[in-house]
Amino acid sequence: MQKTMERPPSPLTIGHRSSQCRARTAELATRHGVIQTPVFMPVGTQATVKAITPENLQEIGAQIILGNTYHLFVRPGHRLIERCGGLHRFMNWDRAILTDSGGFQIFSLKKLSRITEEGAAFRSHLDGSRLFLSPEDAIEVQEALGSDIMMCLDTCIPYPADRTETSGATALTGRWAWRCREARTKHDHLLFGIVQGGMYPDLRRESARTMIDIGFDGYAVGGLSVGEEKEQMYDMTEVTADCLPDDYPRYLMGVGTPEDLVEGVWRGIDMFDCVMPTRNARNGTLFTSTGRVVLKNSRYRDDQLPIDESCDCYTCRNYSRAYLRHLFVSREILSYQLNTIHNIHYYINLMRQIREAIAGDCLASFRNDFYSGLAAE
Amino acid sequence: MQKTMERPPSPLTIGHRSSQCRARTAELATRHGVIQTPVFMPVGTQATVKAITPENLQEIGAQIILGNTYHLFVRPGHRLIERCGGLHRFMNWDRAILTDSGGFQIFSLKKLSRITEEGAAFRSHLDGSRLFLSPEDAIEVQEALGSDIMMCLDTCIPYPADRTETSGATALTGRWAWRCREARTKHDHLLFGIVQGGMYPDLRRESARTMIDIGFDGYAVGGLSVGEEKEQMYDMTEVTADCLPDDYPRYLMGVGTPEDLVEGVWRGIDMFDCVMPTRNARNGTLFTSTGRVVLKNSRYRDDQLPIDESCDCYTCRNYSRAYLRHLFVSREILSYQLNTIHNIHYYINLMRQIREAIAGDCLASFRNDFYSGLAAE
Ligand SMILES: [Zn+2]
Ligand SMILES: [Zn+2]
Repeated sequence: MQKTMERPPSPLTIGHRSSQCRARTAELATRHGVIQTPVFMPVGTQATVKAITPENLQEIGAQIILGNTYHLFVRPGHRLIERCGGLHRFMNWDRAILTDSGGFQIFSLKKLSRITEEGAAFRSHLDGSRLFLSPEDAIEVQEALGSDIMMCLDTCIPYPADRTETSGATALTGRWAWRCREARTKHDHLLFGIVQGGMYPDLRRESARTMIDIGFDGYAVGGLSVGEEKEQMYDMTEVTADCLPDDYPRYLMGVGTPEDLVEGVWRGIDMFDCVMPTRNARNGTLFTSTGRVVLKNSRYRDDQLPIDESCDCYTCRNYSRAYLRHLFVSREILSYQLNTIHNIHYYINLMRQIREAIAGDCLASFRNDFYSGLAAE
Repeated sequence: MQKTMERPPSPLTIGHRSSQCRARTAELATRHGVIQTPVFMPVGTQATVKAITPENLQEIGAQIILGNTYHLFVRPGHRLIERCGGLHRFMNWDRAILTDSGGFQIFSLKKLSRITEEGAAFRSHLDGSRLFLSPEDAIEVQEALGSDIMMCLDTCIPYPADRTETSGATALTGRWAWRCREARTKHDHLLFGIVQGGMYPDLRRESARTMIDIGFDGYAVGGLSVGEEKEQMYDMTEVTADCLPDDYPRYLMGVGTPEDLVEGVWRGIDMFDCVMPTRNARNGTLFTSTGRVVLKNSRYRDDQLPIDESCDCYTCRNYSRAYLRHLFVSREILSYQLNTIHNIHYYINLMRQIREAIAGDCLASFRNDFYSGLAAE
């Protein structure tokens, strides 16, 4: 079963390489446009990036968003979305979409899920109904959604996990990856494999080799940011990235803070996704070049400055901290919109600056300035 | 005290008059632009029209919005808004704003409020703190907000109410209106008197005479849509409107359904406000030319049509009923935005059609077609 398949051509075209670290800029070709990497992908769990419109995302400069297969499978269902013309048409987004496989969400259900060789049996978080997702199903669902970048169904390893458990789950992820590759029918939709291996460098290397042997359009680093220390997360990212082919895209899943993005790019990562900018926005925590603004803090009650004077997003161009604080404490829906616009803009703009720093081969000084800025406040 | 003051020049310039009824088109001049009437004013209670941006409102064609003095007085406070450059600047809205006086909200607090000759004592709905609003305070607050059209503080009469109670409250409203007129310091900000009188035609006439004697820039019909039958509401509107000077703006407060707007215009009303389009939007009930669409209804689950095929709002141009239903049942914030955009567009567009029908002197046939459309579904 572990025969080597033909290696697909890489969708990635490398632009600049940093002489200071493993960072690179590149262009990633998808059915919905070419993406400049390194790139951050806002998360659109239920066929919407929470609280903002597709036009907001376009104005901010988002190139690609992430959709959650599990959520869309459970509600409204991939067949309904397919009948509506696919996920792009359904949600009015004509740029690229990456879908996860659903594995992470199913594992998050814990006692409501059971993993076998065949796939994942689980109960809907909405109504408790019994559902099942095999690797083949995960691909079928993602193809029905019309995803530009599909992810293999993977197993998620708890943290901490012993070597035996980690090894078993990683091996199963490999067998599932093979089945995903075989199940795929639409070859112009990219398919990424996911490297697991927990916190064991040798298992990471083994998992990476398996994925490379199967042959994907890109490779993801999975199973990080699950509770481990930052240093360990960065180490595992580096170990894994170093095993992956240089000419294919590398995607660090579910990560992370602005600092994590800088550190990930430094270690050769091209793609990121995280709910942090959108979730923090709804909690009234805003990212700025000089640290975080927590709107409920009474110091902002009468503050007529924008959230970030150096930010040119719609929110910062038009609203004061005093107004944004008023909306937040008043629980107005507009608060979530304006905060989300700013936070996603912060992430997207950070990635643009990172790309420019790589192109100018000054990522090291950019990284120093970035940390100095955060420490200034 | 009841001496007649100099009558201010009317801010209204009449355009067309219907030969079929009391309807007229006009232009209402304010510090923030000229408003085409009849007009509907979306409600922006807490310095935001719930769930949408000022740019959404502008694209829809909203000419003026309503702000709630009570809410802004309690939080964040009119002095804070004044320090931020006034309500327009605070909320990023450069078209006209009408503010109510706060009376209606204070009366809604019921046991938390007590009315004396001097004014209204009440407890904040937020923290129970003791607050007081006199007629003079109501004007001071509205001037601090920078309102383009201020309203006199009035008493609100419960429904039903006997003649003695109604007469007393109406007389007090008259004495307060006088004090509001005297308290005013900014004469380029318009000030409207409010006619009360409950469900008693003679008290309505008396109240109207009092307001006209004092002399305002416009006159409102208050105390309707408080539980009475539709026919009684229309009758009282007609009785009151007929007592008001033809060359000044007439505003029917807190009303109403699309049908109410048509009937109000028919009886000579120029201005309306109501939370119905915004509140219904958040409850998933959408207005269309053929009746209401209730999104939670499973018949829309797979419906790829827009909410209203004849509507050219952003929501109808880009999203299906199936998608809007998915967002609504998923309780996504975008649901409230998209629904609100459509419902406000429906109201604003209805008023535009009404103005065109008056200009073409065909309001009677427009009204027939309007009711036929609603009955079609
Ligand atoms: Zn900003
Ligand atoms: Zn519409």
